Amino acid sequence: MSRNLIRTFKTSAMTLSHKPKIVANKYFSRDTGKDVWTLTNESAALAATNAQNKGRDMLNLGQGFFSYAPPEFAINEAKNALDIALVNQYSPTRGRPSLIKSLIEFYNPIYSTKLKPENISVFTGANEAILSCLTGLLNQGDEVIVFEPFFDQYIPNIEMCGGKVVYVPINPPKALNERVTKGTEWEIDWDILEKSINSKTKAMIINTPHNPIGKVFTKEELLRLGELCVRNNIVIISDEVYEHLYFTESFTRIATLSPEIGQLTLTVGSAGKSFAATGWRIGWTVSLNEELLGYAAKAHTRICFSSPSPLQEAVANGLTDASKINYFSNMRQEYIRKYEIFTKVFDELNLPYTAAEGSYFILVNFAKVNIPADYKFPEELLQKGKDFRISYWLMNELGVVAIPPTEFYIKEHEKAAENLLRFALCKDDEYLEKTVERLRLLKDYL
Amino acid sequence: MSRNLIRTFKTSAMTLSHKPKIVANKYFSRDTGKDVWTLTNESAALAATNAQNKGRDMLNLGQGFFSYAPPEFAINEAKNALDIALVNQYSPTRGRPSLIKSLIEFYNPIYSTKLKPENISVFTGANEAILSCLTGLLNQGDEVIVFEPFFDQYIPNIEMCGGKVVYVPINPPKALNERVTKGTEWEIDWDILEKSINSKTKAMIINTPHNPIGKVFTKEELLRLGELCVRNNIVIISDEVYEHLYFTESFTRIATLSPEIGQLTLTVGSAGKSFAATGWRIGWTVSLNEELLGYAAKAHTRICFSSPSPLQEAVANGLTDASKINYFSNMRQEYIRKYEIFTKVFDELNLPYTAAEGSYFILVNFAKVNIPADYKFPEELLQKGKDFRISYWLMNELGVVAIPPTEFYIKEHEKAAENLLRFALCKDDEYLEKTVERLRLLKDYL
Repeated sequence: MSRNLIRTFKTSAMTLSHKPKIVANKYFSRDTGKDVWTLTNESAALAATNAQNKGRDMLNLGQGFFSYAPPEFAINEAKNALDIALVNQYSPTRGRPSLIKSLIEFYNPIYSTKLKPENISVFTGANEAILSCLTGLLNQGDEVIVFEPFFDQYIPNIEMCGGKVVYVPINPPKALNERVTKGTEWEIDWDILEKSINSKTKAMIINTPHNPIGKVFTKEELLRLGELCVRNNIVIISDEVYEHLYFTESFTRIATLSPEIGQLTLTVGSAGKSFAATGWRIGWTVSLNEELLGYAAKAHTRICFSSPSPLQEAVANGLTDASKINYFSNMRQEYIRKYEIFTKVFDELNLPYTAAEGSYFILVNFAKVNIPADYKFPEELLQKGKDFRISYWLMNELGVVAIPPTEFYIKEHEKAAENLLRFALCKDDEYLEKTVERLRLLKDYL
Repeated sequence: MSRNLIRTFKTSAMTLSHKPKIVANKYFSRDTGKDVWTLTNESAALAATNAQNKGRDMLNLGQGFFSYAPPEFAINEAKNALDIALVNQYSPTRGRPSLIKSLIEFYNPIYSTKLKPENISVFTGANEAILSCLTGLLNQGDEVIVFEPFFDQYIPNIEMCGGKVVYVPINPPKALNERVTKGTEWEIDWDILEKSINSKTKAMIINTPHNPIGKVFTKEELLRLGELCVRNNIVIISDEVYEHLYFTESFTRIATLSPEIGQLTLTVGSAGKSFAATGWRIGWTVSLNEELLGYAAKAHTRICFSSPSPLQEAVANGLTDASKINYFSNMRQEYIRKYEIFTKVFDELNLPYTAAEGSYFILVNFAKVNIPADYKFPEELLQKGKDFRISYWLMNELGVVAIPPTEFYIKEHEKAAENLLRFALCKDDEYLEKTVERLRLLKDYL
């Protein structure tokens, strides 16, 4: 024991004087500052202790995790899976046959075809699915079109593969500061898009239903995008992780619009979003082009090798259970109600927002909210978009956490979102009601 | 319905004539032929149906997955974890605090220090841990030393990061074909190693207990390696996934040999190997150098974002349970018995092997086994090492599947292992007994 103590002391003391100089990967060792998640979480932790918030709960509608459990049937399927010895061992790298079978049954009517196992591959979450698609596809210097606002993870995923991100804005509605707008009023800047395409353009990432706008791309928009990609031989990575959360009449999937578009498309889905289980890390990619999907699957073999087996099995059986009880359409109805609960306060206050057509996010416009001119902000927020300061003020004064969406823009374009905050509505109704009650206090600042 | 059918037909028919030409990533679209896993699994599936094997089970000691369930306490912890709503949602990207705490408690006495949370990061399996270490570290053209025989996944993981693999042999004992040898008789080629180091050498991957040799590196060997790395500022990635499966007096960890070595080392562990749960995909990295580990953690944030939450929680609590019932030392005793069960047949037949000091593998020498000169092998095995043909013969004649280890060598060095087969002993005792019974049939071929 005393020998151990002496050794401990020696180790600690010597450690400090022997720091080796390691030249790490430039991408991961450059100073990028804190990202929006770190900044928001740190600020929220601090805000929880200030005088204004003392004694009241912080209401966190920042990060998009569910505040509630996955459905009981999915939990039960996971427990059943754990009881089978071999379901705790490696699964085939492309996914458990049971999950691939369930996904085929689910997607066959949507794709109006008989999918083969080779049309589907399982990944360790949608994030690793998208990274694997890019890794399997990109060569150094290839360009990938990304629409702004974007899901922030796309950018490093492209850059890690040696790709170059080409940003194309989705322009906000002109009336953004004045009235409630629709997702359809956020429009791709087609001019910039067409000018951005060149011989190096290898892929385009689209996201529908869209985070953070809540826009569901129309069939016309998707057809125009798809045909542009066919003409220019551009691979489409369609991030459809919110596929069950559309509140429009129907949800159009770009891969189904023509055989030519289908052959260029990799469509990504997520058990985390579909079963309120973001911590399960099960995602998948569907493609009518087996060869194209094959590259992503090969990359996955080297990135994660295989995905969590008992959770794959749970999703396989959970998909079957879900179809029997109309789980997904019930979930849609639930979310329509959640938006009704949440938006009423902004209607009362006359604060504009973009009515979500899908996803579980909403962008709310705070331009009319008067934040005292002499309000004290931390140094690190001063060079950020105005929305970072609105977010900071809101969590400190009202104890409500939301995400500043300029993080999902490059610096040159962030003006478009500087008055907006993104709220995540994947919380139970009571939590949303409590947040609404708190947000009513905004009336004193209008 | 009929409309759907027509559309299906149209889609399929048109699909074929509209295959786009995609130039995928060169690394993932080159023709590498089938790897050893695919070749062995496909051959085994075929062999199961031939005349010789008809009516008898194939005994598969090929891939290293457990034939049995994780311990009951671990399964119960996983089920308990699933019952907590938020344990089904995203975990912090560096790992659940509960798991980091358990790992700190586990490793503190081993490292003779008080580890901080920053000394540990959780990954989605040891595979993604090693990839993240390399991704966070390597710049284009950096060299990484890998010892032969190697775990095959290391190679693409290095090359995907733009690194160059530098191969250094672990030379087999001279008496390999004659008698039972020891792991210590497999020796690093120190001359080649020292000559391989240059200004581009960024990292070295070591693996102890070693797959496939079963060697546990001695303190002297590790100290010599460590000091070489300190002199040349080389980062050590120590793959210690079989850390609980050593059958020697003690198990030396390179990171603990000196503060200078500790500052250069990233040590990788695996819940899959420790809890017989290869399908759970929970691994971790420990490093006394927080900054070095930080690069790997940053890479992980972009690769997988976070790891499966309920399984992390299960491992967190499982580690505590395990220490109460001496699970790991009991497991060691179990494996000592498994090796006794399995090696007796080779002792009877006088077939040499390398007595394993650790891991759950064993290399057995088949030089004395006479395979008929006119035996028919599939075309694709003819350009492979002789061991691929021994493996093929064994599965077809005796119904026993083993892995040809020349796959873990570059072509120029594969002679060293051409008479060997690797058997995985992570199977229940009955299965091993049955395999021994079957292997007794080898006496007709000696």
